[in-house]
Amino acid sequence: MLKLFYSPGAISLAAHIALEETGAPYELIRVDFKSEEQRSSAYLAINPQGRVPALVTSRGILTETPAILVHIAQNFPEAKLLPPDPWDFARMLSVLSYVASTVHVDNAHLNRGYRWADDEESIREIRRKAPEVMAADLRLLEGKIGEPWVLGEHYSVADTHLFVMSWWAEPDGVSLADLPNLRAHLDRMQNRSAVQKAFAQEGLAAR
Amino acid sequence: MLKLFYSPGAISLAAHIALEETGAPYELIRVDFKSEEQRSSAYLAINPQGRVPALVTSRGILTETPAILVHIAQNFPEAKLLPPDPWDFARMLSVLSYVASTVHVDNAHLNRGYRWADDEESIREIRRKAPEVMAADLRLLEGKIGEPWVLGEHYSVADTHLFVMSWWAEPDGVSLADLPNLRAHLDRMQNRSAVQKAFAQEGLAAR
Ligand SMILES: N[C@@H](CCC(=O)N[C@@H](CS)C(=O)NCC(=O)O)C(=O)O
Ligand SMILES: N[C@@H](CCC(=O)N[C@@H](CS)C(=O)NCC(=O)O)C(=O)O
Repeated sequence: MLKLFYSPGAISLAAHIALEETGAPYELIRVDFKSEEQRSSAYLAINPQGRVPALVTSRGILTETPAILVHIAQNFPEAKLLPPDPWDFARMLSVLSYVASTVHVDNAHLNRGYRWADDEESIREIRRKAPEVMAADLRLLEGKIGEPWVLGEHYSVADTHLFVMSWWAEPDGVSLADLPNLRAHLDRMQNRSAVQKAFAQEGLAAR
Repeated sequence: MLKLFYSPGAISLAAHIALEETGAPYELIRVDFKSEEQRSSAYLAINPQGRVPALVTSRGILTETPAILVHIAQNFPEAKLLPPDPWDFARMLSVLSYVASTVHVDNAHLNRGYRWADDEESIREIRRKAPEVMAADLRLLEGKIGEPWVLGEHYSVADTHLFVMSWWAEPDGVSLADLPNLRAHLDRMQNRSAVQKAFAQEGLAAR
């Protein structure tokens, strides 16, 4: 049985939703960020980077959301979480990579500026600028995503990944008022039972 | 015929090497960073993010290195740039995602700190810290990669992606002296004719 290490409302939520979409049994293990459990030696043995998500499988431990999402989808083909067309698969990987390498990284500058600067002033400046950077980078997705799902008709793991960005946006200081496609996508996602189950398990609320 | 938009020595080098590995014909189009051509309206019509690489295919334009690499590999299966085992495929995606979302992002903080801060002081501080962050993040790969290739016996597009990070390391201020696995991998890559051809076409030298 797959085991997912997560923290409530973190990027691990994308993998959590994907697992719920499959309907397969899995185990959810909470990593407590308040007590910095992600930096404990026990957790560093799971993921030496000290981050969530990590997926424990019968073959080994997998890290990185894009890889975890594709792996879950490939292991449960009945859930049809990957598009059948190879070009759509490439477009899907492009969205996963853009979210992980750009939009999620913008979000990290809001609360974890200490990764990239040591002094208080610089960390404050990085924090100040983060919402405008994230807004600009989300705008590129606003013009690019399909309807009703990221790839068009076919729902895929790219939807679960993008969803976390849009769900983070308002608390991160990014208004969705002028990003209507992302707002509509967020609403459609929040209507899915997989999202509602993951929210209930992590103690989260719709936005 | 595929067209690759690149800048010499940028992350587009990973896709360039992958194309050379396939032996297929393709067209290489240089984007001139000196004159900021990546921000011209002509190039923004190719990639609205104003970055390289972008791959023009018969189906449309693809951005994001991990997606481009997997797409090239899937289109030329004879080149065997993807591992046959699904678990190895997942491990490969994990490396692609870690490189794109973590190590490449560290490198960007060196010369493009203005993305995340406006004032000179903060940009200087971000630049100062970048090499230590990149060194720490490369160290995680040092302990994780296989031999002779990232996945072990099977050469894959993960090797071309990691290669660019190791080739960047020394000029970025990260010594490879205490990262012997990465150093040996860099050397093995530089012995491949696909790398030598890409170097010659981009006007680059081995390190
Ligand atoms: N590239 C990774 C990033 C994972 C990541 O940064 N996770 C955050 C939570 S959103 C984390 O665990 N942060 C803990 C910390 O920085 O201490 C992915 O896409 O999975
Ligand atoms: N996540 C993208 C990042 C692409 C990227 O940042 N490319 C850099 C070159 S290494 C670029 O085009 N920079 C131009 C600029 O920032 O103006 C990928 O992996 O392809």
